[in-house]
Amino acid sequence: MPKVTPRTLSGFMELLPAPQQQMDLFLNTLRETYSLYGFTSLDTPLVESAEILLAKGGGETEKQIYRFQKGDADLALRFDLTVPLAKYVALHAGELAFPFRRFQIGKVYRGERAQRGRFREFYQADIDVIGDGRLDVANEAEIPAVIYSTFTRLGLKRFQIQVNNRKILNGFYAMLGLTEKAGEIMRSVDKLDKIGPENVRELLITGVELNEAQADDIMKFISITGSNAEVLEQLRSYQGRSELFDLGVAELTTVVKYLAAFGVPEAYFAVNLTIARGLDYYTGTVYETYMLDHPEIGSICSGGRYDNLAEYYTDRQLPGVGISIGASRLFYILQEQAMLNEEVNTAPADVLVLPMTEDLTAAAQAATYLRSVGIRTQLYAEQRKFKAKMSYADKLKIPFVAFMGEDEAAQGKISLKNMTTGTQNLLTLEEAAEQVKDTLAKRNVGTLIRG
Amino acid sequence: MPKVTPRTLSGFMELLPAPQQQMDLFLNTLRETYSLYGFTSLDTPLVESAEILLAKGGGETEKQIYRFQKGDADLALRFDLTVPLAKYVALHAGELAFPFRRFQIGKVYRGERAQRGRFREFYQADIDVIGDGRLDVANEAEIPAVIYSTFTRLGLKRFQIQVNNRKILNGFYAMLGLTEKAGEIMRSVDKLDKIGPENVRELLITGVELNEAQADDIMKFISITGSNAEVLEQLRSYQGRSELFDLGVAELTTVVKYLAAFGVPEAYFAVNLTIARGLDYYTGTVYETYMLDHPEIGSICSGGRYDNLAEYYTDRQLPGVGISIGASRLFYILQEQAMLNEEVNTAPADVLVLPMTEDLTAAAQAATYLRSVGIRTQLYAEQRKFKAKMSYADKLKIPFVAFMGEDEAAQGKISLKNMTTGTQNLLTLEEAAEQVKDTLAKRNVGTLIRG
Repeated sequence: MPKVTPRTLSGFMELLPAPQQQMDLFLNTLRETYSLYGFTSLDTPLVESAEILLAKGGGETEKQIYRFQKGDADLALRFDLTVPLAKYVALHAGELAFPFRRFQIGKVYRGERAQRGRFREFYQADIDVIGDGRLDVANEAEIPAVIYSTFTRLGLKRFQIQVNNRKILNGFYAMLGLTEKAGEIMRSVDKLDKIGPENVRELLITGVELNEAQADDIMKFISITGSNAEVLEQLRSYQGRSELFDLGVAELTTVVKYLAAFGVPEAYFAVNLTIARGLDYYTGTVYETYMLDHPEIGSICSGGRYDNLAEYYTDRQLPGVGISIGASRLFYILQEQAMLNEEVNTAPADVLVLPMTEDLTAAAQAATYLRSVGIRTQLYAEQRKFKAKMSYADKLKIPFVAFMGEDEAAQGKISLKNMTTGTQNLLTLEEAAEQVKDTLAKRNVGTLIRG
Repeated sequence: MPKVTPRTLSGFMELLPAPQQQMDLFLNTLRETYSLYGFTSLDTPLVESAEILLAKGGGETEKQIYRFQKGDADLALRFDLTVPLAKYVALHAGELAFPFRRFQIGKVYRGERAQRGRFREFYQADIDVIGDGRLDVANEAEIPAVIYSTFTRLGLKRFQIQVNNRKILNGFYAMLGLTEKAGEIMRSVDKLDKIGPENVRELLITGVELNEAQADDIMKFISITGSNAEVLEQLRSYQGRSELFDLGVAELTTVVKYLAAFGVPEAYFAVNLTIARGLDYYTGTVYETYMLDHPEIGSICSGGRYDNLAEYYTDRQLPGVGISIGASRLFYILQEQAMLNEEVNTAPADVLVLPMTEDLTAAAQAATYLRSVGIRTQLYAEQRKFKAKMSYADKLKIPFVAFMGEDEAAQGKISLKNMTTGTQNLLTLEEAAEQVKDTLAKRNVGTLIRG
């Protein structure tokens, strides 16, 4: 028969079983952490009407979207989880309780040029809090806590949540009479890390056509640094010149004020006045998160406050705040940087029961017992040489092998071999279960990311 | 601004938060059960090259598939999890250990005519054991145990796993010299439940053009019933006339023999000689699973033994055995039949912390503590009337509300109200956490399906 060469599309992640187990642990950690903060899970379709997904329209989205006809229907694959959320909330608003706190971890699709570490199908892991008409700024203070918990639970240590407030930025540019040039200015400032302050100043003067005094005012402003208290103190020196600015400073003060109460150590948090995060959507606090040892990777968790989630679908005012982790990309980076903890159990089972007799009854009974007490157990039923069976357990890194031979069956026991230590003991099933559980409880304590 | 009417595509399931929690519990129960049996999870792309997905080609698949171009690429959404598995194993065979046991729970796409309870995007939940060149029949004996555990853990009580063996069927038709008509005969026999034995006999004579003796032989054969031992006894009376038949009886005998050892009570299992499950693919044991009170629903978990998983992609012989649960459809049926346990906790959080002061510090600290000990906690930060806050907790069925007022903050305590009993107590955070955990541990014991 002529064969079709098996292949997986470029830009589509497909993992082998052991890394898949790591990926599952990664996504489960996000799921658990989001749940601890009172977010409920959603699962919306991957396919939506193209009209829905492209309601906002324009730009990269239209070019990258996977769009297709089926019968008369003009369909597309979702390219993020925010647009489906906006549709969901607009559609089901009458049946939801507000504030509506949801998380969604799901695949999204973007037909980008395929390159290393860029995916066309990838997981996003989002949380959002949506208010009906209004939403208290305290919600913006809680978001850094969710980010901090999420990465800490994954085992990441050296990261920092950087925060700004769009009202401060817009208010500041209004003070300088530069509201109309705010977009251009922010795009120039955004290049600070790449090209340095001198070149940004140059760009502001030659590119955005500011005068030197204006450029200097901006450079002075974005160079404000220090502890949170120091930054807030310096910002207060600008107060009284723009209502919007003052409101932004008040919001930032609230966010900073509650950090400790929400459990975020100050070292994990910094105000960064250069962060803007796009132009139209965000209206208050904005977040980016950096790995301190890998600034080149860019933000690994971003988001912010917005005032109008679903304006393309409903007149209802739905303000919210949310963040998103590009989970596939982050997982890929953790793999590439060798940051994943190899001690994490990636075996498909914790015990491999090896029957040493032709009749499998006693071995099947043992496997049934171990499963009944919650131990992941595989019965190896193939007629292979002993060595082949043991090398199967080795290859899959199964922590325990349990031999069931005639002697064991006669005594109602099993020979349990700890594959790490090499120790082997003849035990009752209850004793064996206890030993497996104790050993694994001690061993499976590491986080996904190496400490 | 002109609005796009928010809508979700017909045939695409989109659940409200409470049923979504039930669905999550449903899928997690499948995941956990599959894991207990030593299956490792896979997550393959939803989009594959159309050439890969349609390698087998033909029939309904081609009509129903979502296929589209992106640039030069001819792509399609997967319509099941078996074809992607075949591709995966053919592609990665050198890196896998065999037998390869995988589960996959994921969405698949079929552009069927939309109708009640039929989905175009739906979850399948599959397990398969794949051998390299050979696979012991004992694996076929273990599958009913996985099915039994899965449905029992969900809380389903009245169901039965029905089993047949394709070798017995093919061997029997060979005995009668009817091998070439086997497909037609099986399609007629498959109508037994719908049209009754008289009409099947008639169909065999007029439709398949058998003579009366042949039709009677078949009718007698498919009417074999009784306990497993009785059915096997009756099958043995046909032995010695077809090697294939005898091999099938031996396999069925093995499957039945190990049932008890694998923990399947005999009442949950029955040999049914009318089951065939399609024509070409399956070669040994086949499985169907019925809800005893809802036979009209058809099989809720089906599968079987096959000898050549990936013949379209590789010369490597990859025999296997697997089953599939149409998870979205089954969940929909459980909802429709009001079989879901309404006692299951579907709240987004277990504790709603209600600050009774303007300053949220103490409330945020309390929420942080509760989260740190694993309690799903929401801080309600909105400035709303007390009644609105309480009705929020009611609407979401949050089990506990914790009030943090000036008195509580001064004492370092919290007033914990059990929303079910109405009891309210002033407690330390540690005491509150303990009470929440104890209460939920007692309450969250029910299965998803009502007992």
